[in-house]
Amino acid sequence: MATKRKLIVVANRGPVSYARSPEGDRITKRGGGGLVTALRGLVAQHEVTWIASAMSEEDRAVAEEHAGDAFDEVWRDGSPYRVRLVAHDVRAFDGFYNVAANPTLWFLQHYMWGLAYAPDVDVELRDAWFNGYVPVNKGFADAVVAELDRRPDAAVFLHDYHLYLAPKLVREQRPDALLTHFIHIPWPETDYWHVLPAHLRIAIHEGVLANDIVGLHTHRWRLNFLRACEDIVGADVDHAASAVRHAGRTTLVTAHPIGIDPAEFDELRNDANVLEQERVIAGRRPEFLVVRVDRTDPSKNVVRGFRAFALYLELHPEMHGRVSLLALLDPSRQDIPEYVDYLAAVEREARNVNTRFQRDGWLPVDLQIADNFAQSIAAYKQYDALLVNPVFDGLNLVSKEAPLVNERDGVLILSENAGSHEELGEWALTVNPFDIFGQAEALHAPATGDHLIHQVLFNRRARLIGCGIIA
Amino acid sequence: MATKRKLIVVANRGPVSYARSPEGDRITKRGGGGLVTALRGLVAQHEVTWIASAMSEEDRAVAEEHAGDAFDEVWRDGSPYRVRLVAHDVRAFDGFYNVAANPTLWFLQHYMWGLAYAPDVDVELRDAWFNGYVPVNKGFADAVVAELDRRPDAAVFLHDYHLYLAPKLVREQRPDALLTHFIHIPWPETDYWHVLPAHLRIAIHEGVLANDIVGLHTHRWRLNFLRACEDIVGADVDHAASAVRHAGRTTLVTAHPIGIDPAEFDELRNDANVLEQERVIAGRRPEFLVVRVDRTDPSKNVVRGFRAFALYLELHPEMHGRVSLLALLDPSRQDIPEYVDYLAAVEREARNVNTRFQRDGWLPVDLQIADNFAQSIAAYKQYDALLVNPVFDGLNLVSKEAPLVNERDGVLILSENAGSHEELGEWALTVNPFDIFGQAEALHAPATGDHLIHQVLFNRRARLIGCGIIA
Repeated sequence: MATKRKLIVVANRGPVSYARSPEGDRITKRGGGGLVTALRGLVAQHEVTWIASAMSEEDRAVAEEHAGDAFDEVWRDGSPYRVRLVAHDVRAFDGFYNVAANPTLWFLQHYMWGLAYAPDVDVELRDAWFNGYVPVNKGFADAVVAELDRRPDAAVFLHDYHLYLAPKLVREQRPDALLTHFIHIPWPETDYWHVLPAHLRIAIHEGVLANDIVGLHTHRWRLNFLRACEDIVGADVDHAASAVRHAGRTTLVTAHPIGIDPAEFDELRNDANVLEQERVIAGRRPEFLVVRVDRTDPSKNVVRGFRAFALYLELHPEMHGRVSLLALLDPSRQDIPEYVDYLAAVEREARNVNTRFQRDGWLPVDLQIADNFAQSIAAYKQYDALLVNPVFDGLNLVSKEAPLVNERDGVLILSENAGSHEELGEWALTVNPFDIFGQAEALHAPATGDHLIHQVLFNRRARLIGCGIIA
Repeated sequence: MATKRKLIVVANRGPVSYARSPEGDRITKRGGGGLVTALRGLVAQHEVTWIASAMSEEDRAVAEEHAGDAFDEVWRDGSPYRVRLVAHDVRAFDGFYNVAANPTLWFLQHYMWGLAYAPDVDVELRDAWFNGYVPVNKGFADAVVAELDRRPDAAVFLHDYHLYLAPKLVREQRPDALLTHFIHIPWPETDYWHVLPAHLRIAIHEGVLANDIVGLHTHRWRLNFLRACEDIVGADVDHAASAVRHAGRTTLVTAHPIGIDPAEFDELRNDANVLEQERVIAGRRPEFLVVRVDRTDPSKNVVRGFRAFALYLELHPEMHGRVSLLALLDPSRQDIPEYVDYLAAVEREARNVNTRFQRDGWLPVDLQIADNFAQSIAAYKQYDALLVNPVFDGLNLVSKEAPLVNERDGVLILSENAGSHEELGEWALTVNPFDIFGQAEALHAPATGDHLIHQVLFNRRARLIGCGIIA
């Protein structure tokens, strides 16, 4: 990490976006989110150019002012870096983002399609692919090639499911470029890739295999990727070396879970906004507080979490009035019907639980639909049980962040299908995300105290976890 | 096949069931269905005892008359064999059959759960497992052990997803028994087995691995099984030998697609009932006839088939009035809500297509919900295109039977996820079952004639396919 390397980071979402204030001034918004968190260390350490989509109208204006070229920006910590915004055709971007990437690929990679009814690979999805996903990936590839022309020795670091075709499009023009790709979500197994017709699933795997290195969060997703390459494109896989030989090239496949920065959370725990939010939570909390913090994504399994909490209350009437579930949910992707439906289902299920059990001023489920980071950190400090029960999840940062600031020896209840389970499973109560009964049993842990010894060990070890995604 | 072997066949459904006539006489019903078809040759060639569940009230009366022991029966072709009906506890059987096996295991093994919402492993499913699936499997195992006491040198031949626990329960009592198990449905990949909590998915894999031989229809399901054994129970797999080493034993895993009997279909094509039904179809059919024959199972993908037909009509207005889709659907498992919902969706989608396109006495979709085998054979003879587009299917007998009797050089449009695609894909138009557009394109094949040369080859080769499931 001592030498500065030249890096071209490529991701749909950039670390900044632009808007106009009511007074008409340009505002620079520095984004959060998993990807920016994951890459926070890179910009300070290396010479970074970040290629991203121009997503807002003001982003497009900025891109146009620079004629599509990169320009200088400053990271939150003051480090300089360059940004290159790609202004895709608006209709192409809509199909790329709102149809092909979300929900199609996202649902596929989280095993969430109810295959008897959805998806339909129909005229709309074909259009979104051929006139959206393909040209947007081409736009990214062209931008990468232009940046490589400026810095031929730069390493290219692509991100996630938006960019599966770009590596091959770059490779065709720059055979010797160093291309790496990190995939932040699960890689599903071969049969589930059959949700896409052969030409699409083959294009995806061949696109990704144009990289020199492919990274995933866990050994589980890594193995799925290796097997899928064997099955879908007939690649030659060396499992011992974790290498895939295809079309005359070799791709190394690695498992690197993203780490978090303990120092950042040490600061956050005493942030004034966090302390203010914590006073509110502490003033309202009952004896035992269960917390969940998620986007309202169907993969996060909020509905089953509420059902499990209801079953817990049914099985343990002695806990009525003594425990509540605080659910802090950030509304997600409300342009997509599946997400609108899921948020409605979440709200309905919370009402069901409260209608059934609420009494004497006790609110069993406290559902808050908002994007409020300080409130989340405050809840992290206050939980007795943290419920992280995703259906499938590439990693899950909440399960890593929250135990770092928790002040009550709270227990982590963790889905076996969260990527973070490979690291944290030993120090958590493992649940199967479909198992309502098992989750209801786990929710009783704080009241029994059996978990404490595990949690003390966990909290100690959690401080030691902080590796970046590049070794 | 020359020597008679002693076989104990074990399957939830027997080849006979009993009822009472309106006059009060006992009636013996000889069943059809895939399993009886598959095993038709065994009874004539070997000394067979068939162990099955007593499913009807009269079955239970017969079982009681024989005090649960086996008794003599006669196969359709006059061959003698023995039947042993196991009268399970009625409530246990209901949980076993209507909750644990269908829909839970069936949906799991066909990748049909929409995992954001279903299934819930809740109190009902746990009850159905521990007080249904487990004791019913124990009832079967006890019956097998009793029959082995009578014929210690008999080979045991278990069938399908109802009996995953029985092999281990037998093995514990009879370590040296020869146990084989054929699984007629797909074996899904590891991640999807995570729909069940660890103790259930491990019990299933350990149960099946107590067999000496496990058979599946295709190499694809065989590979999934081998990998799942590695992942779920940590078994040692020799992929070259297709053998699994676990708990001190070795299980051989084979791929044996079920064959059909060409002679049977040669007879059927001239059956009086078939000819009568064929006159009706021939009298009503337009220039081009598309046929599908299925149970109304969500895995059969009827709704998407109708959507593809609608898209075909939209893309080819010149075919209006010249083509229709005859869908002969046998209503299936209407005790299970998911199946009731799916049948309603099928009827709704057929109405949608007809409302949109019907005119001048032309009915685009002719939907017939009935169990009428003669009508199915008649439709087999008359199709110009046969649509077999399952989401996932262990094998699919329709795709093997229909081309044998078809008299119009009809084209087979076959899902890549049907097990039969491993054998027939080369002679069929392959479609992806989710790809509405691809299916709409394939439906135009009869009108273009391009498929004829392939189909002639296919029909010739189809006559040569008739292997049994035991080599």
